[in-house]
Amino acid sequence: MTTETKPAYNVVGSRPLRPDGVDKVTGRARYGADINLPDMLYGRLLRSPHAHARIVSIDTSRAKALDGVKCVITHEDLPGATDEIVDLGESVSPYKWVLQNVLASDKALYQGHAVAAVCATDPHIAEDALGLIDVEYDVLPPVLSVHDAMAEGAPILHDGMKTVEMVARFVPGEGRGERETNIASQLEFEHGDPAAGFEEADIVLEGEFETAAAHQGYIEPQNGTAHWNSDGTLTVWVSTQGPFAVRATVSKMLDIPLANVKVIPMEIGGGFGGKLPAYMEPTAAVMSRLTGRPVKMYMNREEVLIGTGPTSATYVRCKIGAKNDGTIIAAEATLAYEAGAFPGSPVGAGATCMFSSYDIPNIYVDALDVVTNKPKCQAYRAPGSPQGTFAVESLIDQLAERLERDPMELRAQNSAHEGTRRADGVVLPKIGAEETMQAAIDSPHYRSEIGIDEDGRLLGRGVSMGFWTNAGMESAAYASVNEDGTVNLSVGSVDIGGQRAGLAMQFAETMGIEYDLVRPQVVDTDSIGFTHVTGGSRVAYATGIAVHEAALDVREQMEARAAMIWDVDAGAVSYENGIISGPDGQQFTFKELCGRMPGTGGQIQGQADVLPTQPGPAYGCHIVDVAVDRDTGKVDILRYSAVQDVGTAIHPSYVEGQVQGGVAQGAGMALTEEYVYSPEGRMTNASLLDYRMPTSLDLPEIETILVEVPNPSHPYGVRGVGEVPIVPPLAAIANAIYDATGIRMNSLPASPTKLLDRLLDD
Amino acid sequence: MTTETKPAYNVVGSRPLRPDGVDKVTGRARYGADINLPDMLYGRLLRSPHAHARIVSIDTSRAKALDGVKCVITHEDLPGATDEIVDLGESVSPYKWVLQNVLASDKALYQGHAVAAVCATDPHIAEDALGLIDVEYDVLPPVLSVHDAMAEGAPILHDGMKTVEMVARFVPGEGRGERETNIASQLEFEHGDPAAGFEEADIVLEGEFETAAAHQGYIEPQNGTAHWNSDGTLTVWVSTQGPFAVRATVSKMLDIPLANVKVIPMEIGGGFGGKLPAYMEPTAAVMSRLTGRPVKMYMNREEVLIGTGPTSATYVRCKIGAKNDGTIIAAEATLAYEAGAFPGSPVGAGATCMFSSYDIPNIYVDALDVVTNKPKCQAYRAPGSPQGTFAVESLIDQLAERLERDPMELRAQNSAHEGTRRADGVVLPKIGAEETMQAAIDSPHYRSEIGIDEDGRLLGRGVSMGFWTNAGMESAAYASVNEDGTVNLSVGSVDIGGQRAGLAMQFAETMGIEYDLVRPQVVDTDSIGFTHVTGGSRVAYATGIAVHEAALDVREQMEARAAMIWDVDAGAVSYENGIISGPDGQQFTFKELCGRMPGTGGQIQGQADVLPTQPGPAYGCHIVDVAVDRDTGKVDILRYSAVQDVGTAIHPSYVEGQVQGGVAQGAGMALTEEYVYSPEGRMTNASLLDYRMPTSLDLPEIETILVEVPNPSHPYGVRGVGEVPIVPPLAAIANAIYDATGIRMNSLPASPTKLLDRLLDD
Repeated sequence: MTTETKPAYNVVGSRPLRPDGVDKVTGRARYGADINLPDMLYGRLLRSPHAHARIVSIDTSRAKALDGVKCVITHEDLPGATDEIVDLGESVSPYKWVLQNVLASDKALYQGHAVAAVCATDPHIAEDALGLIDVEYDVLPPVLSVHDAMAEGAPILHDGMKTVEMVARFVPGEGRGERETNIASQLEFEHGDPAAGFEEADIVLEGEFETAAAHQGYIEPQNGTAHWNSDGTLTVWVSTQGPFAVRATVSKMLDIPLANVKVIPMEIGGGFGGKLPAYMEPTAAVMSRLTGRPVKMYMNREEVLIGTGPTSATYVRCKIGAKNDGTIIAAEATLAYEAGAFPGSPVGAGATCMFSSYDIPNIYVDALDVVTNKPKCQAYRAPGSPQGTFAVESLIDQLAERLERDPMELRAQNSAHEGTRRADGVVLPKIGAEETMQAAIDSPHYRSEIGIDEDGRLLGRGVSMGFWTNAGMESAAYASVNEDGTVNLSVGSVDIGGQRAGLAMQFAETMGIEYDLVRPQVVDTDSIGFTHVTGGSRVAYATGIAVHEAALDVREQMEARAAMIWDVDAGAVSYENGIISGPDGQQFTFKELCGRMPGTGGQIQGQADVLPTQPGPAYGCHIVDVAVDRDTGKVDILRYSAVQDVGTAIHPSYVEGQVQGGVAQGAGMALTEEYVYSPEGRMTNASLLDYRMPTSLDLPEIETILVEVPNPSHPYGVRGVGEVPIVPPLAAIANAIYDATGIRMNSLPASPTKLLDRLLDD
Repeated sequence: MTTETKPAYNVVGSRPLRPDGVDKVTGRARYGADINLPDMLYGRLLRSPHAHARIVSIDTSRAKALDGVKCVITHEDLPGATDEIVDLGESVSPYKWVLQNVLASDKALYQGHAVAAVCATDPHIAEDALGLIDVEYDVLPPVLSVHDAMAEGAPILHDGMKTVEMVARFVPGEGRGERETNIASQLEFEHGDPAAGFEEADIVLEGEFETAAAHQGYIEPQNGTAHWNSDGTLTVWVSTQGPFAVRATVSKMLDIPLANVKVIPMEIGGGFGGKLPAYMEPTAAVMSRLTGRPVKMYMNREEVLIGTGPTSATYVRCKIGAKNDGTIIAAEATLAYEAGAFPGSPVGAGATCMFSSYDIPNIYVDALDVVTNKPKCQAYRAPGSPQGTFAVESLIDQLAERLERDPMELRAQNSAHEGTRRADGVVLPKIGAEETMQAAIDSPHYRSEIGIDEDGRLLGRGVSMGFWTNAGMESAAYASVNEDGTVNLSVGSVDIGGQRAGLAMQFAETMGIEYDLVRPQVVDTDSIGFTHVTGGSRVAYATGIAVHEAALDVREQMEARAAMIWDVDAGAVSYENGIISGPDGQQFTFKELCGRMPGTGGQIQGQADVLPTQPGPAYGCHIVDVAVDRDTGKVDILRYSAVQDVGTAIHPSYVEGQVQGGVAQGAGMALTEEYVYSPEGRMTNASLLDYRMPTSLDLPEIETILVEVPNPSHPYGVRGVGEVPIVPPLAAIANAIYDATGIRMNSLPASPTKLLDRLLDD
């Protein structure tokens, strides 16, 4: 669906074959685990069985004595930690915390926290050696929720951590920054006059909402192979979303220049934010330096679940005030997000996004980042937005019910638009919120009747909006034009969701040539300019601008070359649609001029490094029909439609796939996925049998409706597409469950157990 | 030795550690033979045992039936040959000849000519399968020398080959282009009035000279692994001097776009010109396409000797005319160089170079490219120049003797200089011929006495000049500047003789930063702009200009960035010696400004593609003392000094190494190396035991004297250095043998057998 006249593109909007397709379906694609090097050692991590414990001593002598073991290291063996705040490309943290997450120093802060690493000639020997490392723990009581963490007298995870801007309501009777706390930071947004707004409201609705920690659930476990060379250089092979982030981390850790670290990104089997940070690469690098041999490390599934970061479990208290005509005039929220063992939850993004679908004049948001004895949380697809949005969209559903209004009409009445001020004060540029809502209202799904279930299940429909800011950040591109009119295009953006195809398409569009003539590749960190992570839905936008600029660079050089050949002024030559034209009717096709390059000064390369700062914020509106089994509490999704403003869909098949994937993950968070902990803080469902992600059998075909309101800050109107679709499912499904059962599941997931309890209570 | 005031460089001229050193001494460097891929097949070639034979039939059925054999191919299986003349980066040939050299079509044209290829799951099975291929040959008489080839009634190698500009003197009684011939082409140079010159001469000296075919003798045999992907792309791993040449060849052969072929250059164990062309890569690619699996091929030593191209065996008739005062006023030569089985000897370069050390007003040169039943010759370090020079320098030695003049003084009297016209009509630019001769005259070696040998051997001293044009051609460079002030530098020039170090040094010099901050790498053909072969001594010059231009590109962008930060006009900012200065005394160091990049618009990349056309022609003058054993004919080199104008020595250690290596190879051609053939055309010494290359035990430490007359067409004055030093040894050693024994060895090598025969004749 296009809401305005779309330019006539040649390549953009088509659905060519993906360049990595054959490699992936034939098993030829090489992932991190496929690396094998001569003399390679295998590294394994010993992980804490305790969620919170002081490490009294670590005796590695028995492990070191095992035949085949080449080195055993602990935090002591890592280069010096500092309090310096560093930007490692994926997060900005005091460096000592980065190191402490890699290998625990004085305390183990979560079950699964690595406390020692071993490398050996064989993975089984390495595994055996773990059992020979003697760690003496002084077990401490764990803190397993934001409530526990903020309770008076709570065990403190980090000695000396004080929140400078402490809020009295969460730490009664205490001043600001005067005592140790588990609140790592606090953020407040306010605009308008929230108190006056609520005063003016005819209706005020309030609620408390909770979500569980959920894992990104990428297919491929974390891995990393490091090869230290005695000349002071390091090569790292890894499946990562951020090769330059890994480079920054190991460069910093080993105190070697950036240019001495070559990170080779392998194909990646999913990331969703979880593969932004380095986990084992620094350890592998240190062990490679100690042994002089390559060291390969990879996790098993249990390690992925207990040792890497899921998204935050969250607590949100939210309030909205509206007039009787449906106008929402005030909103307030307090968010407390679990950061896990070290600061850094996405609570800020949650606070930014939750109200951004609507034009609300008076807003106050208070956001707390709270450490708990769980794995340090990591980014997970639109990090923080689904949880805050769940609260807001649940309340709006209640508001529609109270006012007896159609829930979508009510939303559309309050829609954000160009000029709306977000909770964080940012004024929205051209956006497609209204178009998205209208498309949802007009959709076949929304216009359909729910009907009655033949099996007697309770049926209901829910809707929700979702918002994500999308990201810009730095990207580079390098294109080499061959004499036969083909182009090799190099980028530093790892391809998780179609980046190679989408970037080659944009390059081809700008050049006015066919897609098949452009051969894209993702190269290592030595071979391309700095490029930020594949994340934040930024690649099609920011790296897209980079390849566009590189194409413009090629075009300009081709114009100059043609001018030289024709002996005319360069300004008189123009490049359009792959045709270079001179002032007197001379013409070259792109291919013809490429053929003239070798003899007229050499072949051409184009390049660009860009730092775009106007990504296109984007909206999704989801409609879901569910069936609830009264006897088991099981919720089945019967039909699901995802409407989304994608700006411009470069490769619609990929875009649809992204939307469908986001819905699947959001549905998992809504219904089945959660980290379940014992009172001691041990995860009791650390396998994919017990940690329940939806499979294809759990979901219907997800219908997608692509709305295209071009982002004016991108040459082809690209907004990010990957993250928005995980935002609405939590609230949409909870609202559908309410519609079916009359039960408000304010605590997700709405797992059968929890829902059955509520059904039985009724 | 510097002959003029050299600019004060910071990096150029220093001797930093080589970046590939650790990898090479630790065995970590990866060569072509180190490639191993899942499911890989091993390819082997069946080679003709006959030097000249019509192929009546090839029956591959028994071989195909062998368990483990996956495919067997012959010339028929190669994509269609054409008469199209193609530039494959290393030579310009009719494409059908390229294909016929890869796999013979209707005729086997030399012993070792590949006639079929097999690939199997195991190299031993592949080897066994060769014995099951039944080839029926109709054996023809072979043509084994230029004389045989040009004799009346000689067997004709190529049906229909007629030399358009045939010269009557070699084909008596025949007109031009009227009958089939083995003379593939003829080239004539003439300037001044040679006949009048000889008329005017007081002394005319004339001689006939012969040299044998000699192999480049690289340590690492040829190899190539090809992996065809069903999406129409091909990856090739190979040790080659010309990854882009290999790309062009397989792209042409498989009729796929250039962008679909990724050639990954591995480390290379020597090349010297012999690894410019593709040998097995096209065959491997075809077999990979047929089997869908990667195919690895590599030669053994015998295959290298019989199946790849040595330099030409040559015949040269030469005449010089001089005045009694020593002025050389006329020169004439006829050169007939063996091309081997297909056209393409370096006779043109021989004709160009042989007289270029001297300012001779009247010159005629006649150069013939003659096919014979031997492997197609390939480039070998200053291809063609040593052989022609051997003739000229032998005659000048005779002239000095006749005039009772010091041989170096006589040469200096006739030295070429800026403005001298070469045999091919090119006017020499600024050169260092006179400076080189003078440095030789002034050298400790030349000023020393020869003395008397205590073992009673005959002692003698010889000198010779040598010339090489050096090459320009296209090169690209790409540099990525990191925020910590380090730089990753990518080039497409394979590193055989220090290219990585020498290029990083030039980049660092232009940037005004330390060498250690620049990390160079050689990348694959997908990842850098087109770059011609590593050959022609062109890399330090042409790719050097590319990295210099890329550095200037970075500097310009840094100036603009500083101007933006300071809010001043870009024109008011200057970059000098790694310091960026503003109009009001503002300053950034390179590193400081790098640190500001991420926040001010992104990090910087520089690039360049250059096609420089003014390489610096260069001269060497060698002095050698030999001892000749009367009883065995064995010649020992007692002392050897190589004086050479290197323009500017970027990394003097590498330059000295190049000079020493060239001398070693030239000494081999002078004394021991030769292809020995049976009357049937079978090489009888196809092993390194019998093909005698000098070892370190055969040579003294070679003294080097670097003269530096900068090439004004390169920013740091670089001339090529690698090829010149192979030119003088042939004549210098022959002249020394004469000085010792009174015997003119006009036929090289002066092997013990040959020399003993002459000694016994005396």
